[in-house]
Amino acid sequence: MNAPTSFEATTRAMANAIRALTMDAVQAANSGHPGMPMGMADVAAVLFRRFVTLDPADPQWPDRDRFVLSAGHGSMLLYAVNHLLGYADMPAEELKRFRQLGARTAGHPEYGHAAGVEVTTGPLGQGLATAVGMALAERMANARWGDALVDHRTWVIAGDGCLMEGISHEAIDLAGHLGLGRLVVLWDDNRITIDGGTELSTSTDQMARFAAAGWHTVACDAHDPGGIAAAIQAAQEDPRPSLVACRSVIGWGAPNKQGSPDCHGAPLGAEEIAAARAHLEWPHAPFEIDPAVRDAWQAIARRGAQARAAWQARHAAHPDREGFDEAQSRGGLEVLDAAMARHKARLLADRPSIATRKASELALAVVNAALPDTVGGSADLTGSNLTRSAGMRLVTRADYGGRYIHYGIREHGMAAAMNGIALHGGFRPYGGTFLAFADYSRPAIRLAALMGVPVTHVMTHDSIGLGEDGPTHQPVEHLASLRAIPNLTVIRPADAVETAESWEIAMEATDGPVLLALSRQNLPTLRDRADRNLTALGAYCLRDPGDRQATLIATGSEVEIALAAADLLAEQGIIAAVVSAPSFELFAAQPADYRAAVLGDAPRVGVEAAIRQGWDGAILRTTDGFVGMTGFGASAPAPDLYRHFGITVEAVADAARNLITE
Amino acid sequence: MNAPTSFEATTRAMANAIRALTMDAVQAANSGHPGMPMGMADVAAVLFRRFVTLDPADPQWPDRDRFVLSAGHGSMLLYAVNHLLGYADMPAEELKRFRQLGARTAGHPEYGHAAGVEVTTGPLGQGLATAVGMALAERMANARWGDALVDHRTWVIAGDGCLMEGISHEAIDLAGHLGLGRLVVLWDDNRITIDGGTELSTSTDQMARFAAAGWHTVACDAHDPGGIAAAIQAAQEDPRPSLVACRSVIGWGAPNKQGSPDCHGAPLGAEEIAAARAHLEWPHAPFEIDPAVRDAWQAIARRGAQARAAWQARHAAHPDREGFDEAQSRGGLEVLDAAMARHKARLLADRPSIATRKASELALAVVNAALPDTVGGSADLTGSNLTRSAGMRLVTRADYGGRYIHYGIREHGMAAAMNGIALHGGFRPYGGTFLAFADYSRPAIRLAALMGVPVTHVMTHDSIGLGEDGPTHQPVEHLASLRAIPNLTVIRPADAVETAESWEIAMEATDGPVLLALSRQNLPTLRDRADRNLTALGAYCLRDPGDRQATLIATGSEVEIALAAADLLAEQGIIAAVVSAPSFELFAAQPADYRAAVLGDAPRVGVEAAIRQGWDGAILRTTDGFVGMTGFGASAPAPDLYRHFGITVEAVADAARNLITE
Repeated sequence: MNAPTSFEATTRAMANAIRALTMDAVQAANSGHPGMPMGMADVAAVLFRRFVTLDPADPQWPDRDRFVLSAGHGSMLLYAVNHLLGYADMPAEELKRFRQLGARTAGHPEYGHAAGVEVTTGPLGQGLATAVGMALAERMANARWGDALVDHRTWVIAGDGCLMEGISHEAIDLAGHLGLGRLVVLWDDNRITIDGGTELSTSTDQMARFAAAGWHTVACDAHDPGGIAAAIQAAQEDPRPSLVACRSVIGWGAPNKQGSPDCHGAPLGAEEIAAARAHLEWPHAPFEIDPAVRDAWQAIARRGAQARAAWQARHAAHPDREGFDEAQSRGGLEVLDAAMARHKARLLADRPSIATRKASELALAVVNAALPDTVGGSADLTGSNLTRSAGMRLVTRADYGGRYIHYGIREHGMAAAMNGIALHGGFRPYGGTFLAFADYSRPAIRLAALMGVPVTHVMTHDSIGLGEDGPTHQPVEHLASLRAIPNLTVIRPADAVETAESWEIAMEATDGPVLLALSRQNLPTLRDRADRNLTALGAYCLRDPGDRQATLIATGSEVEIALAAADLLAEQGIIAAVVSAPSFELFAAQPADYRAAVLGDAPRVGVEAAIRQGWDGAILRTTDGFVGMTGFGASAPAPDLYRHFGITVEAVADAARNLITE
Repeated sequence: MNAPTSFEATTRAMANAIRALTMDAVQAANSGHPGMPMGMADVAAVLFRRFVTLDPADPQWPDRDRFVLSAGHGSMLLYAVNHLLGYADMPAEELKRFRQLGARTAGHPEYGHAAGVEVTTGPLGQGLATAVGMALAERMANARWGDALVDHRTWVIAGDGCLMEGISHEAIDLAGHLGLGRLVVLWDDNRITIDGGTELSTSTDQMARFAAAGWHTVACDAHDPGGIAAAIQAAQEDPRPSLVACRSVIGWGAPNKQGSPDCHGAPLGAEEIAAARAHLEWPHAPFEIDPAVRDAWQAIARRGAQARAAWQARHAAHPDREGFDEAQSRGGLEVLDAAMARHKARLLADRPSIATRKASELALAVVNAALPDTVGGSADLTGSNLTRSAGMRLVTRADYGGRYIHYGIREHGMAAAMNGIALHGGFRPYGGTFLAFADYSRPAIRLAALMGVPVTHVMTHDSIGLGEDGPTHQPVEHLASLRAIPNLTVIRPADAVETAESWEIAMEATDGPVLLALSRQNLPTLRDRADRNLTALGAYCLRDPGDRQATLIATGSEVEIALAAADLLAEQGIIAAVVSAPSFELFAAQPADYRAAVLGDAPRVGVEAAIRQGWDGAILRTTDGFVGMTGFGASAPAPDLYRHFGITVEAVADAARNLITE
């Protein structure tokens, strides 16, 4: 063999620093995944050394490259890189506390825990699909602000698991269709999964598969720095999104365990680590880095700092810098406030009887006019979700300046891409589908909640009220299952005013996703005043008769029923208050005395065309009544279904009367 | 043009019968999807006429072909075909009641509502992924019983939506890998989605994509009967699974609307229907079928009846017919009962301190020895889920006689394939993943519950007790969200005995899925007796002190904590009962007096390392206490996390004491 060139030798040493830190941290934690970081260390070293632009001194610099570790179990690769690059919050002490309570070095990368973690990963495929949203946001921002302000790339390391998960199909199809040439996916082609060789479970020709989706593909030996650099260079130059298949050896450097599933998810052990140190000619103590190697890593940071300084100079001189900054900070709410006040006044005057999905369309016209940073879309249900405002141009590969995305029949990919768009910054994404199909996008909705990412899910056809499409399309347990997700705000507005208020809440959100559950069927305008956003209270007395004998509490399309039931009870001499409760999460955040005043002491009846789970404790007491669903729906016209399942004015009145006279 | 041959003319007339029935039924319902049935009518006519073997007089005949309408919104295609074939439960009256309450002709095909509906479809991609399980089950059954008893095919009609959904990737990868040559997917390549042309959202070369996954592909003009027949013939002959791309015109036959999204999901209207009748030269009144056309369809049924008669003769003479029949009827429970009794006696003697996932492995050794029809698997977590019993041979394309499936990192595809295996019959499928990833497979779990299909989900790592992997992997809301699904039985056993009992329940189930939530961490044996399956009661007094001052109710890994808390309370002079509540669904099915006796009148404290939602109403009263989670978990060793989140013996005892002394 020839003596290695300087590039190769330095890169290998930089990679071995990742390997050593990984072995040591996993060993210290006695838990973690050494195989991937060690296998992909050479690729990471080449990638960062030659291609990635970022500045650890300003982790939020808008024009930084985005690096996404989709194979999140290899978190030590990311932590090691960020430590070596010199992120201030990632000293060796954090590596030593890998996977310990309160450490920034969580088992999987957690967005918000440490700088330089662009997205929470771990559930496989999510990072890849989120990166598609980031890469799309980059092109959309570039179309708005130009090369001087927006000119960066999105890099992903993905494993076999990411490529086997279904979400990867949605993601790569969308990326190929939209021509996201600044997205490069480095596939850790180690041919090993937890259960054994990939031949146990897949025969797919990934290169051919990505090519079929419109991607550029190139392969390299993941342990040949020159070959890696050439492959990434080709990927960077090709106008299509690129897959770089990196033929790697899992756990490379651990002489007795490399290439085996054994080194995937367990510490190597002291003996093997010692053998690896010898094999890699890495004589340093645990967590100790050769100064020359550290300097080679920090040269990357110095290059990034120069790039940032140059960008800041361009930014300072840029005529559109205020608009750019406002988009970064999710501004524009004063404009929205004023426009929404006018909109709600019109609604109170017109008192339309429309579906809340239609009310959402009306509100969106206001939102999208007021806020230039909204980007809408739907998973191929635009005409049903009513998510496209007049004049919203399509986002296409030929025109990233548009504001509406045809996500295709890809609910999961849409939700993940929305996360990526929001994480990238500069846009407020929203997207629509049917509420029943929240199940398809659930893993990405959960990640948004966990990360605290503000995205808006527009979910129409929110109950048996959709009618004939039947039980596969009728949400029954979905409100309960979504309310169960921590940090997700679910809002089910009852009329056009509450719908407008819901959109205000969604646009003001900064620290978590908002999900709107909207009706297919028409609903009357119920509210008389709109001077205050009552939806933001979560629940409020829509009809307050003073001394009440019963409280009827409903959401969305069932508030109308509760009001009619109160009328019926009044005829029978029973005084009932009616509470509209559009959001249990927002209500739970109110002071206890407000909640007690709204709910009152009288017997309560909850009304929702869904299961009772989630109402008890939050809204209802054990002794209170509920009118709703107890099982799956059925296929029939909506009015027939409401009668069939007993969600009627009479049933609500009966439930209240029975409680009072018990 | 030449005069059509007889084959072509007759096939076209048979197809036009589907078209006419579709137009008329959708118009009568004033709701539904005419586009797909009209576009794929020629393909369906050729498919059934030349290739499909079934007998409407015996819809459950085990060796019938399976026909799956994955594009379930085109339900009228299936209902029209089944009407024309002569299914007794599909008279014209049912077509006239399309999408009405109680009709067999639900908006989307509902398994169990009408004969000849092999699977509930509508959520896109599910039919395709379920069909993969059916086709696999056919080969597995063939390996066991031979060509004389098992020799059929699985046919799927799928739309663009099915192929865009992520689950399609998991399904076709698995099918290609397992070489399921008897699976043929007819893709309705109409280049139209709801939002417009497919060019709005996809650029994928589907033929290349399927080829990359190991499929045979062939294309045809969906309106050329000869070409369709040749393509399906080629698909049938190829040893690989086949994609037949049928280039179709949506709504073919409606002269002014065909080829447009307008005819996808709305009635054509009286005028266009009249125009179509003229265009198709179909002079018959609504729902009226030309006798010659009906006879051509019923010739298919006659051919199927002959095939069934021949099969029955082979079956009657077959030496293994009793074993075959027992597998069809999910027999063998007596053998299991006896073996489980011995197993539980051993557990009571040995009193192991093991994780319930390990206890599940022990129980599975018994189950798999007793029941030859179980087929296990995991989504690449075999060593974590502990789902493979010793001696379980792998299912591979070279050996379908195995009993363990490496499903790959494909939770959703696994769940759908399990549905297909169970629907096919002859097997009891179970499959494993982490509980947090129930989110990935949720749409298929819901379909199993809706259909009432007995499959078993083995979900390990069921709480923060998994430790360092952190919040992405730690279920918090999953128990609540799964308990929300109607007709799904969730069981979270507390020790090895309850785990064994859970497996008995799962194997006895006939009308819905069972999900086992199992711990990663070790748990002591708690039970003293096993003469009765107490888990089947859903909840029971594990410690009954007679006059109780408090009731501590826990599930799974937290029952140990509740017992210790009762001990601590006893030291403080407070008498507490301890209830183990492994399954809320099974408990809810018990008589009210039993439930009241178990729960008692004393203050209650629920204990579960998960959110409280789902406990209130079912188990707890508003005034009762709960010790559990209120948000996402964290990455740290499990004992640290239990302390950090306050799920401790002391906290439970404090909660009870506070309630008593309030």
